[in-house]
Amino acid sequence: MPAAGDESTLMLTVSEIASQLGGEVFGKADLVVTGFAGLDDASADDLVFISSAKWAGRWSDSDARVALVTRGVEVQGHDSETSALIVVENAEIGLMLLLEAVAAELRPAPPAGVHSDASVDPTAVVSDSASIGARAVIGPGARIGQEVVIHPGVVIGEACVVGDRTIVHPGAVIGAEGFGFRPDPETGLPRRVPHLGSVEIGSDVEIGACCCVDRGKFGPTLIGDGTKIDNLVQVAHNVKIGRGVIIAGQAGLAGSVEIGDGAVLGAQVGVAEHVKIGAGARIAATSGVLRDIPSGEDYAGTPARPARQTLREVAALRRLPELVASMPRRESS
Amino acid sequence: MPAAGDESTLMLTVSEIASQLGGEVFGKADLVVTGFAGLDDASADDLVFISSAKWAGRWSDSDARVALVTRGVEVQGHDSETSALIVVENAEIGLMLLLEAVAAELRPAPPAGVHSDASVDPTAVVSDSASIGARAVIGPGARIGQEVVIHPGVVIGEACVVGDRTIVHPGAVIGAEGFGFRPDPETGLPRRVPHLGSVEIGSDVEIGACCCVDRGKFGPTLIGDGTKIDNLVQVAHNVKIGRGVIIAGQAGLAGSVEIGDGAVLGAQVGVAEHVKIGAGARIAATSGVLRDIPSGEDYAGTPARPARQTLREVAALRRLPELVASMPRRESS
Amino acid sequence: MPAAGDESTLMLTVSEIASQLGGEVFGKADLVVTGFAGLDDASADDLVFISSAKWAGRWSDSDARVALVTRGVEVQGHDSETSALIVVENAEIGLMLLLEAVAAELRPAPPAGVHSDASVDPTAVVSDSASIGARAVIGPGARIGQEVVIHPGVVIGEACVVGDRTIVHPGAVIGAEGFGFRPDPETGLPRRVPHLGSVEIGSDVEIGACCCVDRGKFGPTLIGDGTKIDNLVQVAHNVKIGRGVIIAGQAGLAGSVEIGDGAVLGAQVGVAEHVKIGAGARIAATSGVLRDIPSGEDYAGTPARPARQTLREVAALRRLPELVASMPRRESS
Repeated sequence: MPAAGDESTLMLTVSEIASQLGGEVFGKADLVVTGFAGLDDASADDLVFISSAKWAGRWSDSDARVALVTRGVEVQGHDSETSALIVVENAEIGLMLLLEAVAAELRPAPPAGVHSDASVDPTAVVSDSASIGARAVIGPGARIGQEVVIHPGVVIGEACVVGDRTIVHPGAVIGAEGFGFRPDPETGLPRRVPHLGSVEIGSDVEIGACCCVDRGKFGPTLIGDGTKIDNLVQVAHNVKIGRGVIIAGQAGLAGSVEIGDGAVLGAQVGVAEHVKIGAGARIAATSGVLRDIPSGEDYAGTPARPARQTLREVAALRRLPELVASMPRRESS
Repeated sequence: MPAAGDESTLMLTVSEIASQLGGEVFGKADLVVTGFAGLDDASADDLVFISSAKWAGRWSDSDARVALVTRGVEVQGHDSETSALIVVENAEIGLMLLLEAVAAELRPAPPAGVHSDASVDPTAVVSDSASIGARAVIGPGARIGQEVVIHPGVVIGEACVVGDRTIVHPGAVIGAEGFGFRPDPETGLPRRVPHLGSVEIGSDVEIGACCCVDRGKFGPTLIGDGTKIDNLVQVAHNVKIGRGVIIAGQAGLAGSVEIGDGAVLGAQVGVAEHVKIGAGARIAATSGVLRDIPSGEDYAGTPARPARQTLREVAALRRLPELVASMPRRESS
Repeated sequence: MPAAGDESTLMLTVSEIASQLGGEVFGKADLVVTGFAGLDDASADDLVFISSAKWAGRWSDSDARVALVTRGVEVQGHDSETSALIVVENAEIGLMLLLEAVAAELRPAPPAGVHSDASVDPTAVVSDSASIGARAVIGPGARIGQEVVIHPGVVIGEACVVGDRTIVHPGAVIGAEGFGFRPDPETGLPRRVPHLGSVEIGSDVEIGACCCVDRGKFGPTLIGDGTKIDNLVQVAHNVKIGRGVIIAGQAGLAGSVEIGDGAVLGAQVGVAEHVKIGAGARIAATSGVLRDIPSGEDYAGTPARPARQTLREVAALRRLPELVASMPRRESS
């Protein structure tokens, strides 16, 4: 158990790292690392990684003393008296594996099982290997897959489905009734259109803290495998999100939006009802998307348009005050 | 109880629907519908509705086989051997009534009463017909009206009032202290201005998941009857929202904003402090409203201006790079 | 205990106020005030304050009958038969002190101690004078300082630290895992980068309802003393916020953003990754900040630029449609 607020709990020697990753050591095997960093930002106790010739050339200028190096990359200016290189098949993957090993020890995943302060409806089906946190609420007929982590305070609504290994962060609400109303002919006030659908979340998904994913009108709202959604994102009824999509914080998708596989939406992006965003498209932060966007394209601005065009317009707008000042004012007709 | 994630639980025959709505059947009374859709999107098992001559002309082209029809509308090309028309007084209202009947069966409203995992202060007054969900918190002196639904995880603060039949979706926070500070003359740091008011929510209101409605400084923050607010919306201290207002997801109203009856605010709209939006005004999604807006007008953009003007400016901006390129660069003076 | 929804519980006589603040009364000592207001908005029962000659001149035009007055300010046209002035050292501070006294009685702070419906991990360290609300969740190893108020439904994650007298409003989530992923070389899908850091919140901070403050990757996410954050704000991993910063509702700070002391961010502002905002800078609501901003400057717009420049551009944009219409269309080449 790390001491509260104590960041200095990571301590690994070069030989421990090499042994964990099956790497070969060149230099001081007893050096200790207490953190991880990029080559340019590193301090003396950070582990860095060198995965190409480009970075290898900067090793002698770095403050770091320990590097993971991809086999075959030639590192110049290495001083084995003061530093250590640990050579592995792929330095980048090695760093990730090391981080994951450290994480499992320092910040272990919450234990499987239902916390005694959670509230699980008796008709919900929760996998034995899932973890349901304190104060989480699992509604009637919901299904929670294997190794799922439902963090504290999450609400999973009636009949919603969460796929294997998916993580739902604290305070998220899955399966609230969608926002659909019609004018009531008697009162003139808006009257709810019932939403009978559910939410189906795939495997290996993450849903950020305080996100809201509404249930569909008839069919389900869908979130594909491997998709990652940041905090405070709104996903309205009947949205269909593909596989491996990235959606940054505070973005909002209106009803029936479709997002293709591998698309990336920046923070605070808004997407209007029924709009389709193609696979692999990338939308710049704060953009407002009003029309369909083709696959693989970069879009930006409100209304969203090709990012190059938006950049040109922003640059031209800089010169507009000068341009207007230079023009004779038209007579008003 | 529908099976988890199973969307195919709706099964109604034409004669069941006709009997429920008091309609007259022309065609195959034993056809079964399993969903609802618009005429153009419908598949063979969907129920559609035809409420005018315009739609009546498309009936023969639709994949649907069952339609609700408003009495007096002439439907062309109907084949009573393969399809069925159910004639009612008003097809649109008929569909809504049917949806509501189906919803009451498939997704019944939560039962009246306080869930055993809710936390209700002993000084709060909760109507017997209200439903308080798991993990909801009702503060001291709060008053919850008849047939109200407080969903799981909602927090209703001290002395706040929720009117009859209002629905508060999961994770919403009603009555947090407003965001008001003054520089502390001793420390120079901001110091809280106490907020002594409350929140008063009318009847037939909906407050979306993870919305925040702050308490007023002295008087209450007010939300009028029949107003519907989507998820993740911010309503600051002393805001006054009229009747039948629609506010889409992630919109934000700063302190003391006033919204007239029947106004419609799009998603991610922001409204600055003390601004008044007139009755029936409509604000396009993502607009930033800095000044008062007259009743009945359409506004768009940041800063918000009449929607037509914003459209003209956006169109002109498209031509600006070309225009700038064609101009001689002014000498810098 | 005030009656629910009853706003008229404040009743103070002029002599009570004078005695509480050590002030001197000129006029009717038995007048009763039931609220507070600015001089221009006041009704007959409101207490107003007059702290300069400018406001003193408007006293005779106000509907208010009771004013706090800063010693030395000459008030014209005062009728001591119908009204009362209470003279104190500093009218503005006097009003604050009075408000705080009234608040302590009408809306007392939640009592110290852990609510019986809260969920506190046995390894968390909670000060005896802290208040932990119903349905709050305090994770393993978290530390909660003196006189802290954790409101209902808040989640404080593992190893996070909350400084003395800090207030965390309902539904906020502190210490969710940051949003960091890399492409998994095997599947091509995004794969989580573990986040081992924590969140450290200073003293006298406020975190608004449904805010999300993510834990750092290695080091902590930091929020400085006296900083106030409104509702629904996103603070990503490794952000560093200085002292006395004000952040309005629905703003979002991406990973590793740094905000200098005393800066003010308007509502719905977005700040891109790694951007630094200087001390005392002020960012207008809804701006999108893509580059560093110098200390003390006013910025506005998306992308954010000096506020004056943005105003000029917005004004020029108003004339652009006319300008474009007056230009000959270039031949397309």
